[in-house]
Amino acid sequence: MNFSIIRYILFRVLEFAALFLSLPCLIAIIYQEKAGYSFAVVMAGCLLVAEIGRRWKPKSNVFYAREGFITVSLTWIILSIVGALPFYFSREIPSFTDALFETISGLTTTGGSILSDVECLSRSVQFWRLFTHWIGGMGVLVLILAVLPLSGGYNMHLMRAESPGPSVGKLVPRVQATAKILYGIYIGITLLQIVCLKIAGMSLYDSTVLTFSTLGTGGFGVLNTSIGSYKMSIQIIFTIFMILGGMNFNVYYLLLVARKPKDAIKHEEARYYLLLFFGAAALIAWNIRGYYGNIGEAFHHALFQVASLGSTTGFSTANFDTWPEFSKAVLFVIMAIGACAGSTGGGFKVSRILLLVQDMRRELLRVVHPQIVKKPHLEGRVVEDETVESIHSYLIIYLVVFLVSFLLLSLDKYDMTTNLSAVLANLNNVGPGFHSVGPTCNYGGYTVFSKFVLMFDMLTGRLELLPMLLLFSPRVWKKY
Amino acid sequence: MNFSIIRYILFRVLEFAALFLSLPCLIAIIYQEKAGYSFAVVMAGCLLVAEIGRRWKPKSNVFYAREGFITVSLTWIILSIVGALPFYFSREIPSFTDALFETISGLTTTGGSILSDVECLSRSVQFWRLFTHWIGGMGVLVLILAVLPLSGGYNMHLMRAESPGPSVGKLVPRVQATAKILYGIYIGITLLQIVCLKIAGMSLYDSTVLTFSTLGTGGFGVLNTSIGSYKMSIQIIFTIFMILGGMNFNVYYLLLVARKPKDAIKHEEARYYLLLFFGAAALIAWNIRGYYGNIGEAFHHALFQVASLGSTTGFSTANFDTWPEFSKAVLFVIMAIGACAGSTGGGFKVSRILLLVQDMRRELLRVVHPQIVKKPHLEGRVVEDETVESIHSYLIIYLVVFLVSFLLLSLDKYDMTTNLSAVLANLNNVGPGFHSVGPTCNYGGYTVFSKFVLMFDMLTGRLELLPMLLLFSPRVWKKY
Repeated sequence: MNFSIIRYILFRVLEFAALFLSLPCLIAIIYQEKAGYSFAVVMAGCLLVAEIGRRWKPKSNVFYAREGFITVSLTWIILSIVGALPFYFSREIPSFTDALFETISGLTTTGGSILSDVECLSRSVQFWRLFTHWIGGMGVLVLILAVLPLSGGYNMHLMRAESPGPSVGKLVPRVQATAKILYGIYIGITLLQIVCLKIAGMSLYDSTVLTFSTLGTGGFGVLNTSIGSYKMSIQIIFTIFMILGGMNFNVYYLLLVARKPKDAIKHEEARYYLLLFFGAAALIAWNIRGYYGNIGEAFHHALFQVASLGSTTGFSTANFDTWPEFSKAVLFVIMAIGACAGSTGGGFKVSRILLLVQDMRRELLRVVHPQIVKKPHLEGRVVEDETVESIHSYLIIYLVVFLVSFLLLSLDKYDMTTNLSAVLANLNNVGPGFHSVGPTCNYGGYTVFSKFVLMFDMLTGRLELLPMLLLFSPRVWKKY
Repeated sequence: MNFSIIRYILFRVLEFAALFLSLPCLIAIIYQEKAGYSFAVVMAGCLLVAEIGRRWKPKSNVFYAREGFITVSLTWIILSIVGALPFYFSREIPSFTDALFETISGLTTTGGSILSDVECLSRSVQFWRLFTHWIGGMGVLVLILAVLPLSGGYNMHLMRAESPGPSVGKLVPRVQATAKILYGIYIGITLLQIVCLKIAGMSLYDSTVLTFSTLGTGGFGVLNTSIGSYKMSIQIIFTIFMILGGMNFNVYYLLLVARKPKDAIKHEEARYYLLLFFGAAALIAWNIRGYYGNIGEAFHHALFQVASLGSTTGFSTANFDTWPEFSKAVLFVIMAIGACAGSTGGGFKVSRILLLVQDMRRELLRVVHPQIVKKPHLEGRVVEDETVESIHSYLIIYLVVFLVSFLLLSLDKYDMTTNLSAVLANLNNVGPGFHSVGPTCNYGGYTVFSKFVLMFDMLTGRLELLPMLLLFSPRVWKKY
């Protein structure tokens, strides 16, 4: 392990942390809030430490996959701790565990809260809480790659470790150019949603912070009723942009940058993603038609909830925990599948499911026609066995993490549905679950131990398993 | 598809069905019960149809894997229907759907019942109900292979399709000899348990039928309290023989036939199986220590329940649904893992888990040391990638069947925990689940549609997925 290069990058991460913290400082100045001092202190601390670290040049540029994984996991852990400090110092979240939970939930775009009242937060703290969604959505290292003139082999390893999906979608040959395009698109859609919400009548502040939450597929809100008390036109805007946040960003690249609209429309993962959402929403709408005035309203709430849980955002307009079991089961499956690869969303990812289903059909056919071997394909390309095998391993590791987390949470006081849905909602970065962690409840009731299990799950899910698990492998920490 | 050979075997299956039915007939004569007529009528019907079919010789001996799978699935469906008729004709189970559910639950050694009162059944019907566990435990085609002088390539395909586990454990080169040894061991252990129970003070009838239920890892009982009202010495006998039923029969072969006790003791799957049970029982005993007088009694009930759900038998001595969540979560995981390959038990199988865990470690290490490729191994032999891949596919197909069944059950009136545990308990041939299908409840409350979903799950689980699923593939049904 080449520790010096990891240290070098981590000090740069602190510089970016200071940059991020300058925004809530600005908000505190505008609204003249005392919480601004907390942000200023933490920002100054970051700059100081980064300045000291700047003199410590890396001894070697050796950078392999393992350095990539460890850098990414340490980056996220450090950012989480730094991000939690202003919540704690401002006393708006008095427990450090809770502050850390809230920050990790923000950065990983989970959106599950330990707060029972979010309306009493000051504007700057609220801004920071929702801005973490936006940072975590696209990834902080992707941002660093886009901005800093890093060279050498490690760009790709970092990008691979932080970006979600079964294989890395480099849009263009150079990693830095890819990162720039991704952030360009991200900022563009962000501005678009802010404008839409503003036109629909929301204040600029609310439009901005809720846009961070939507496009990062996070789920933190500014009202205790999540999205339920906004008028229908605003809810529809949220539905649309949640779906856009969970979409594979390749589609936007094809549409906006490469100008190949035909290829964008043919994008397989995006098509199945939309098909899945509208299909699930139709099933639920039919199932809950008796709960609402008409089928249209039922479909509106069904699609909102499917888009919210499927894109792993986690907003709610209704208490879906009171819906019939079939609707909840559909939502459960939608939560498990999650969003597209290459999106800001979490979950198992639609493309992985597509490949597994094809592989399953191949296995069933192999019995009947042993001579026919048709390899799975995606986006018009044959997918190599190696990729399919890595998805198999991903599934197994996922299930092991899931079951172990479930066992550990069971030591707490809640029932099986609560615990199963809590693990699923945190590992897939969704946010709300069912029963005691349902949309009208929060994670504040779990013990400190359970909260740490869930924090681990959120980070493990966001970084797609390997980076966090490898932290615990002694072999990884050996020097070269 | 070579239909003529399948037809030929299915007619032979009816002869065996008649043979099986002769036993409850005998019981009815001994106890002078009217239900005997129902058995006699069905037996006569089987013999008549088999006699007609006997004239219909197979046109070709072509027999591939697909013929094996289809023969096995059709055999089990026909046996289920034939086996349900006496329940229905005797009016002791007035609904045919319920009679079919009870028979499939019996044959697949699931043990989940639709009856709320099992003590009112006549002795011959009770005998048949529990005897189906014994038949299904080792498999009816394995019995036919052991007895009939079938020759040609199809022995192996039939054995492979009916026997549980990731790879077929032929004990000796010839399939027929293997089948004979397996049944020999099975009958031997059966006699042993009957003697043990008799010595402990149980009646010969109860000893016999409950032994069928134990060693088939079934779970039907003769009392409404399952095993809870027997004295502790009898409960301990059940614990031991449930563990023996879920053990890989290779161990007995090594110990009793091949006389290689050292190899038997070193058997990896058996060791991990026992380790898992005692580990889980210790965790649960610690968790429920407050519920019982002392830690010894807590361990007794914990081990009984772990042995029961882990071997996929499904007996209970206590209402484990009232135990704390952690104990229930451990039982849930134990249910999911299931018994050993090559046993009479169901579930995912310990050896599959062992291989998946090794494969997971390989994948994690691959990131750190790409050059090291250590293949998984089991029982001292390297396991080929093909076998590991087939387990991956098995897992995926399993999850798809699980989720689809869960969605369909959710249309019924029960809650999520009930439905999840019902699917798990039926797909893994365990029997009882949690909440509304817990140990003191039964499956009678589900609708006819849900019952058919669960029947499909029981058969799919017992035959390890492929045979039942291939029934629905049009490609399989094409003529050559």
